[in-house]
Amino acid sequence: MSLKLTILGCHSATPRVNAHPTSQYLEINNRHFLIDCGEGTQRQIRKYKIGFSKIDHIFISHLHGDHFFGLIGLIATFGILNREKDLHVYGPKGIKELINMQLKLSSTWTKYTLIFHELTSKKSELIFEDEKVTVHTIPLHHRVYTNGFLFREKEGLRKVDLSKTVLYPEIDTCDYQNLKNGKDFVLENGTVISNKTLTKNPNKTKSYAFCSDTSYKPDIVPIIKNVTLLYHEATFLNDREDLAKKTRHSTAKQAATIALNATVEQLIIGHYSSRYKDITLFKKEAETVFPNLILAEAGKEIKI
Amino acid sequence: MSLKLTILGCHSATPRVNAHPTSQYLEINNRHFLIDCGEGTQRQIRKYKIGFSKIDHIFISHLHGDHFFGLIGLIATFGILNREKDLHVYGPKGIKELINMQLKLSSTWTKYTLIFHELTSKKSELIFEDEKVTVHTIPLHHRVYTNGFLFREKEGLRKVDLSKTVLYPEIDTCDYQNLKNGKDFVLENGTVISNKTLTKNPNKTKSYAFCSDTSYKPDIVPIIKNVTLLYHEATFLNDREDLAKKTRHSTAKQAATIALNATVEQLIIGHYSSRYKDITLFKKEAETVFPNLILAEAGKEIKI
Repeated sequence: MSLKLTILGCHSATPRVNAHPTSQYLEINNRHFLIDCGEGTQRQIRKYKIGFSKIDHIFISHLHGDHFFGLIGLIATFGILNREKDLHVYGPKGIKELINMQLKLSSTWTKYTLIFHELTSKKSELIFEDEKVTVHTIPLHHRVYTNGFLFREKEGLRKVDLSKTVLYPEIDTCDYQNLKNGKDFVLENGTVISNKTLTKNPNKTKSYAFCSDTSYKPDIVPIIKNVTLLYHEATFLNDREDLAKKTRHSTAKQAATIALNATVEQLIIGHYSSRYKDITLFKKEAETVFPNLILAEAGKEIKI
Repeated sequence: MSLKLTILGCHSATPRVNAHPTSQYLEINNRHFLIDCGEGTQRQIRKYKIGFSKIDHIFISHLHGDHFFGLIGLIATFGILNREKDLHVYGPKGIKELINMQLKLSSTWTKYTLIFHELTSKKSELIFEDEKVTVHTIPLHHRVYTNGFLFREKEGLRKVDLSKTVLYPEIDTCDYQNLKNGKDFVLENGTVISNKTLTKNPNKTKSYAFCSDTSYKPDIVPIIKNVTLLYHEATFLNDREDLAKKTRHSTAKQAATIALNATVEQLIIGHYSSRYKDITLFKKEAETVFPNLILAEAGKEIKI
């Protein structure tokens, strides 16, 4: 089990030469997800050598340009690359009509099937599940309908404790799968050896919560409680808390407060306003509240 | 009078790290025009230090992604930059609904007025005119409705020939404007001195023709005859003339043939397919037909 997050872009508003709008690539438990897709994301995907073909699920938090204007280009490029696998897009209602209209007007056809999952709920809901991972929405509070996303590994199999099974010669390697699945072992004489005696707990699961864009919203804390890694937007510093409130964004201090209250293991912040030339100021402010902190930067990889 | 063309992007299909899709910035007779707007164009505008505020007219040749997926982002950015001046967009029918739908869904409002000029004609037509410049469409032949654009300086005023006016003491400097406007001068004794005697021809006007994307289409030659600078797409080399025909693009040789037959002063080619790693091959092929040739490259400026 592993979690690796690659920041493709982490600035707000307009793309600049060295400031790319929001997009992230998440690898969790061998699943690969793209989160948000600002203009130029496909260029960033190439720059950081991410395989286009690995992306089967794209999650769009909200329909502001710096989070989705790159989506149509990426969808068209998948067509040019002769993609055949289905592509799933999760995002606010309206996204399907918008993308389809652009595909139609640009006479872009795709061999692959584009499957939209339009979101409307104001409550956290399960939107993706397979045998390895679940994804839930995190309802956020912004100027338009916005969701964060919570990615969780499912718990793996129990681990056979060889120092214990060796004590019971009746247990054969072909019994291990049952032990991994949590079954007790019954000796020929009828004695039951409990599964807990023979196995260790599975590896601890990892989880990633993506929260952008949003005003300070403490009621997300129960949803993201104890996650391994939290990305929370920090568009402003505390000196412009008024502007954060007005534009429904957060300050670095507020992001750190959410992390503290949710007792997350690690925090990563981004979505910096272009008014701040020195992004280390965000770190200085946030770490007074929550020290285990990373500043998002394009190309940065966080492996856990 | 002057003409300066800046190439912002000149590759076809998908944006790559060092291959930007089509966009050009044209300065002609103190007018400033953006031509096509592939994804990432606003980043290129910043990179090459072009003033956003100078752009009042954007011409979109056709609705393939590599020519217009950057338009919505640029329009949104103008809003963020608090633009107040009108912005005119010229492009195929459908562009207005598409942009407006995106603005609405992304809750993007603009202080400035966005004025669309939707094109449907299959004949060359005048689409812009002021006291300095005219712009006509050049009907092209591609997989979707496509226009090139012909930018022409208007002829300036005649130039007073001081070596001639000095011969007539009655002519005062306050008469010069009439001479510049082409009027004859009448001496007090009634003798008419013809304007041609007293003035020189105005500077030669400059013109720029942008032709992309298109299959080889000799019937554009009369429209672009004798232009100062012609940009003609060259997606393929002659070895893939079959593919050029099928996809309704041109080869380098075909672009050069158009330039030769139109007796243009200078040719610039671009829109290279990513299959060619060495773009100098395009130059080698084209200059066998038309030697006065430039290869488009992002950041290249052509001043005439």
